[in-house]
Amino acid sequence: MSAGCTQPARITLSQCGSRTALPNSRSCTVNSFTATLARNDQLAAEVAAHPELFRILTGERPTGALHLGHYFGTIAERVRLHRHGVDTFVILADYQVITDRDGIGQVRDHVHNAVLDYVAAGIDPEQATIFTHSAVPALNQLMLPFLSLVTEAELHRNPTVKAEAAASGRALSGLLLTYPVHQAADILSAGANLVPVGKDNLPHIELARVIARRFNDRYGEVFPEPRALLTTAPEVPGLDGRKMSKSYGNAIGLSMTADETAALIRRAPTDSQRHITFDPQQRPGVSALLTTAALTTGRDEHDIAAEIGDGGASALKRFTTDAVNERFAEHRRIRGELALDADFASRVLREGNRRVNEIAEHTLEQVRYAMGTVY
Amino acid sequence: MSAGCTQPARITLSQCGSRTALPNSRSCTVNSFTATLARNDQLAAEVAAHPELFRILTGERPTGALHLGHYFGTIAERVRLHRHGVDTFVILADYQVITDRDGIGQVRDHVHNAVLDYVAAGIDPEQATIFTHSAVPALNQLMLPFLSLVTEAELHRNPTVKAEAAASGRALSGLLLTYPVHQAADILSAGANLVPVGKDNLPHIELARVIARRFNDRYGEVFPEPRALLTTAPEVPGLDGRKMSKSYGNAIGLSMTADETAALIRRAPTDSQRHITFDPQQRPGVSALLTTAALTTGRDEHDIAAEIGDGGASALKRFTTDAVNERFAEHRRIRGELALDADFASRVLREGNRRVNEIAEHTLEQVRYAMGTVY
Repeated sequence: MSAGCTQPARITLSQCGSRTALPNSRSCTVNSFTATLARNDQLAAEVAAHPELFRILTGERPTGALHLGHYFGTIAERVRLHRHGVDTFVILADYQVITDRDGIGQVRDHVHNAVLDYVAAGIDPEQATIFTHSAVPALNQLMLPFLSLVTEAELHRNPTVKAEAAASGRALSGLLLTYPVHQAADILSAGANLVPVGKDNLPHIELARVIARRFNDRYGEVFPEPRALLTTAPEVPGLDGRKMSKSYGNAIGLSMTADETAALIRRAPTDSQRHITFDPQQRPGVSALLTTAALTTGRDEHDIAAEIGDGGASALKRFTTDAVNERFAEHRRIRGELALDADFASRVLREGNRRVNEIAEHTLEQVRYAMGTVY
Repeated sequence: MSAGCTQPARITLSQCGSRTALPNSRSCTVNSFTATLARNDQLAAEVAAHPELFRILTGERPTGALHLGHYFGTIAERVRLHRHGVDTFVILADYQVITDRDGIGQVRDHVHNAVLDYVAAGIDPEQATIFTHSAVPALNQLMLPFLSLVTEAELHRNPTVKAEAAASGRALSGLLLTYPVHQAADILSAGANLVPVGKDNLPHIELARVIARRFNDRYGEVFPEPRALLTTAPEVPGLDGRKMSKSYGNAIGLSMTADETAALIRRAPTDSQRHITFDPQQRPGVSALLTTAALTTGRDEHDIAAEIGDGGASALKRFTTDAVNERFAEHRRIRGELALDADFASRVLREGNRRVNEIAEHTLEQVRYAMGTVY
């Protein structure tokens, strides 16, 4: 999941050889990341050849409206795998919302809106399973045995936990410290064997693998070890060149109208140089518009800059506005139609939650038998 | 719950004014323990006058056979409250077994044996609810919102967690660090408003109160704040004067036969002084036998010592053996009869787990509505 997204469902794993390596992880070398990339190509080929052998789990924290950062960071790849025939589980990780903040906010609205965006983007709810983890008690129960399999020191070493705790400016909550274990429960309870992630999030998948391995060693084989599918999603900057975030007002929402998009882009900060060039360091505003235009047209930033040439910021903004609005016209049309049915998102979630509960209850039953807690 | 028991279900809370005080706990003074005792007398009077207003939660970690330490430490008081008409919930905290060890052991046997002992001791399974928390997913799910309400620093300050981590000689597991939050889930999911505890375990109840208060403040009134009922249970030493523990071979099991009891007491270490006196520091073995005899007869250690006088260790052992065997003859007779029905414990647990699931699901439903996670 791309670092460009504000609130991707956080999925992470310690790199071999680093100080974040987990004690029981397999022996590994300093060249592990190169090895990871080589293995990843092989895994991607396996997925391409036999999509029916894989179940992915991927999703978001429902903290606000989804925007282009989410779309290009994770949703587009998710849709690609889904259309290719991979069994797709999309989690709305609602308990993750409260890892680093006091209130849960308008979580129902955010969840419902995400469902509309997923379906509009091409996730077929008849084939895929869209769910909220708070609706799956058997999944959440796995936190207990799983927490016994990791040490507090291992939890502390997780780089994402450290970074998020620092970013929150708050005392580390018990939930932020332990959420990687909860993510392992998300993945393992649903029987997912593949998790598409960005490089930063590999440590989470490694922790899920460690937990699966330790559980199997201790109680008998129950969990397959999930594999990380490393995706090289582009980083999508906000319109001001900073990280894209709704709270900065620099994010183009998937649900915005064409006019709202135009108004937001019109307000984007640029600079006084009339000639348009791609230079993220020196010209963050202009370059963010170019990247947005490039992603939405599938073209290269430099090509677009050359085409606009001396047209200045206003020509660039018109180009970008048209590119975004054209790219998401169909998405927004479908989304608008789905939204007319006030019960649509609820129906999708009821069915997704029903499916995941069935699977997670079966998983928990296996866990109970393995542990001998059947009375 | 008495420190004399090997594995009471651990229930704990920081004392006001100490460095373990929780930030949001009510203001308190150095004299708080005196104040606690005064409030406790008042609470005990309330319970005596209106038992129907109270629901207790109390129980054990099923790590082995129950012994006299459990009986005099917690079970006797539990039976007293139960017979007095307090709604009684007895938890077999099976996930607590793995907080500080690798394997869960013969947990099913330990759980079944505990049920037989509870019922033999006077807990009526028609009136009381005996359950295992691993069978209650809605209870376990409360770990998630509750973990968001406490900081990692607060979890670390818990004196019981510190002591148990030190005693285990192992790296602190994620589950040992967070189990006081899980105990809050035990208490609050079942709607218990009263928890009988020993002084050492007050910090756990305070944490449950803090969690209830913070949840109510943040999301709206859902949880009553449970109150600790401080019990001054006698500390029961093992037969060698050390802490009573099955692993030391110094514990008289509730399920032992009269002959097994006699054989165990016969092997108990005493000293070469013929005249019997009560002196736990200088004469740990003799004094442990006197305490055992005193607890089982309701008499004073010094009186018994005076009665035996120059009879020596053999007379003391005969006296103690007879006292224990007489005191638990009825318990063992009932227990033996119950054990003839191989399905008895399972039936009790099925019914208890059914009841707690119903209550915990209702609690979780209220939590979902309060948090807005209803989709």
